[in-house]
Amino acid sequence: MNRITFLSDFGTKGVYVAQMKGVVSSISDAQLIDLSHEVSAQNVREGAFLLWAAAPFFPAGTIHVGVVDPGVGTERKGLIVTTKKQVFVGPDNGLLMPAAHLFGDVVVYEITNPRYMIHPLSRTFHGRDIFAPVAAYIARGVPFAEMGSKTSHFVDLRFPLGENQGDRIVGKVLYVDRFGNLVTNIPQDILPQVDVGKTMTLFSGDRRWEQVRFVSSYGFVKPGELLGTVGSSHFLEISVNQGDASKNLGLLPDAEVSIIFS
Amino acid sequence: MNRITFLSDFGTKGVYVAQMKGVVSSISDAQLIDLSHEVSAQNVREGAFLLWAAAPFFPAGTIHVGVVDPGVGTERKGLIVTTKKQVFVGPDNGLLMPAAHLFGDVVVYEITNPRYMIHPLSRTFHGRDIFAPVAAYIARGVPFAEMGSKTSHFVDLRFPLGENQGDRIVGKVLYVDRFGNLVTNIPQDILPQVDVGKTMTLFSGDRRWEQVRFVSSYGFVKPGELLGTVGSSHFLEISVNQGDASKNLGLLPDAEVSIIFS
Amino acid sequence: MNRITFLSDFGTKGVYVAQMKGVVSSISDAQLIDLSHEVSAQNVREGAFLLWAAAPFFPAGTIHVGVVDPGVGTERKGLIVTTKKQVFVGPDNGLLMPAAHLFGDVVVYEITNPRYMIHPLSRTFHGRDIFAPVAAYIARGVPFAEMGSKTSHFVDLRFPLGENQGDRIVGKVLYVDRFGNLVTNIPQDILPQVDVGKTMTLFSGDRRWEQVRFVSSYGFVKPGELLGTVGSSHFLEISVNQGDASKNLGLLPDAEVSIIFS
Repeated sequence: MNRITFLSDFGTKGVYVAQMKGVVSSISDAQLIDLSHEVSAQNVREGAFLLWAAAPFFPAGTIHVGVVDPGVGTERKGLIVTTKKQVFVGPDNGLLMPAAHLFGDVVVYEITNPRYMIHPLSRTFHGRDIFAPVAAYIARGVPFAEMGSKTSHFVDLRFPLGENQGDRIVGKVLYVDRFGNLVTNIPQDILPQVDVGKTMTLFSGDRRWEQVRFVSSYGFVKPGELLGTVGSSHFLEISVNQGDASKNLGLLPDAEVSIIFS
Repeated sequence: MNRITFLSDFGTKGVYVAQMKGVVSSISDAQLIDLSHEVSAQNVREGAFLLWAAAPFFPAGTIHVGVVDPGVGTERKGLIVTTKKQVFVGPDNGLLMPAAHLFGDVVVYEITNPRYMIHPLSRTFHGRDIFAPVAAYIARGVPFAEMGSKTSHFVDLRFPLGENQGDRIVGKVLYVDRFGNLVTNIPQDILPQVDVGKTMTLFSGDRRWEQVRFVSSYGFVKPGELLGTVGSSHFLEISVNQGDASKNLGLLPDAEVSIIFS
Repeated sequence: MNRITFLSDFGTKGVYVAQMKGVVSSISDAQLIDLSHEVSAQNVREGAFLLWAAAPFFPAGTIHVGVVDPGVGTERKGLIVTTKKQVFVGPDNGLLMPAAHLFGDVVVYEITNPRYMIHPLSRTFHGRDIFAPVAAYIARGVPFAEMGSKTSHFVDLRFPLGENQGDRIVGKVLYVDRFGNLVTNIPQDILPQVDVGKTMTLFSGDRRWEQVRFVSSYGFVKPGELLGTVGSSHFLEISVNQGDASKNLGLLPDAEVSIIFS
């Protein structure tokens, strides 16, 4: 069974997402699954994070359409990004790349063949007029090379993992969730076991927070207290129990952090 | 493959939409696709616009269930509206009609056969108890005439296109999106080409706005500046760059507008 | 055709729901249907109400995944709750039980077999790592007893119906909807017919509200006036026309109410 997922910053009040699904339905019987349509407006990096977080849970053969596209209507290309397991379709702004790199054997096609686009082509909605139909034709088995041409010029984006540098663990903030929790790129396998008695010092720029408890759940610390935990994506997360860590600490996506466990 | 779409003003916090999908699933294996459930409460005209904007992108054979239904529980009828390509099911208040007229050969049936309704029939939720099962039985192939009787008495609603009246283009506002952009009924094919150097005068009632730039995207004008552009539905849209045109101009859906290009 | 539904308090901004759907898709071709993802955070009782309100409209064989799970990461069990018609998968906190009791022949299994879980198992997201794959394997036909072991120790929760106690009808508030309407457990069949001329006295604790009109729709009373009506679930609802009955009356879920019709 073919599956096509959708990620965008369109919200769900209008019918932009529905128009994309209508286009896909007109071409293919694929199952349609929403990832999220509440990416912050034009926030390519946040969209890239969410796609990267969701894609690994989908089966081989899944086709993902990503539309966070501040450059629509300019000269930015439209891409098909193929990998060993899944396929990604969307704008050439980095959105698709962190997820694609998870699977390896990345090959990028620039979408060029107008035969696989909806006409009249709008200036502002390539999600509906180019990416949706191309995804549907991929589901139907149309060869990539029929729809576009291979390219090695594209905007790349990677989410490199945090590292253990001996005396400290160094990484950065990838994502701030709606509760203000800071999801870092520091994977569980370079962290110690969580433990009620364990504390860490957190550094960012010239600031530091000491005696941060490293625990398995929020309930181990007092309301308002800073804590470290391992989130459901198996990365270090920095949180405030019943509070907003991003606001309290003044840290946003891309902020560099380092950690020393005591 | 059968497809049934859903449009309503129910929001997604409760399970009203889920109940409709459960009813459909009990009768049919059709694919279920949401158009939007965030139509403003009881705003039939806004719902009609969204259905009209989404339907053309769906394939022939699609069945659309629309439930924006302030008259539920009164004598208003329930309708099946058949057309050359798609079928619409919902209340007799105009909601379904602009979309239906897009396809031609409109034939309207009043739903009368209790056999195709859920019992006990609620007074307040015909979306679940009448429109959802009727849509599912249509997907199963039950003839329209088995479920209701043809009628020529129904509430009609049309979205006539704006016109070029020689010295000026005359139309009206169909929809205000969540950013305050005014989507008009003036189609691209009676507009000049967008052009950085082109300006227009916009009239509504006894007010006028001069030197409005007619451009391909917001970036061509200053923040806070009024502009005209061609939206993704290929109609003239009036916007304020980084602002809310509806609030700034005091224009709402149905406002008459006219335009003279310089 | 197999169907799996999803109910949670995850919201739709992140990709938690999408991750669950990805896991299911990797195992099964079931149709995926959302009940709601906007259950109030960690409000098990509200989630239980919504599942109980939605499940009866789905066909036999439907598998429901419910994830409102404040106890995740503690010793609380994960359950498969089988009934005469439908199957429920989720945490052992009562969430699944009111809906399950609707169908009869309730048999409960504790999920124990790690073979049907996603590894590494996260501490905080059993919806994705245990409940989603178990639901998908149920859809694939894996026997319940292969995934867990029968248990008679589980957190039960029932929504008993209100009763006619001769001089008065006694029940309680099950749910407060987003408009503040109070949905009670008093079924239509022990209520008189709604009638413009009929009034009731409503009691809760030591307070009473007299001359409450019992009508078929809000329009029969003045804005701001208290009213009783029969909602789409066929239970008594207490509302304020154009107002918030929960706030006005200070009544929340679980509040005991009794009613005397005049």
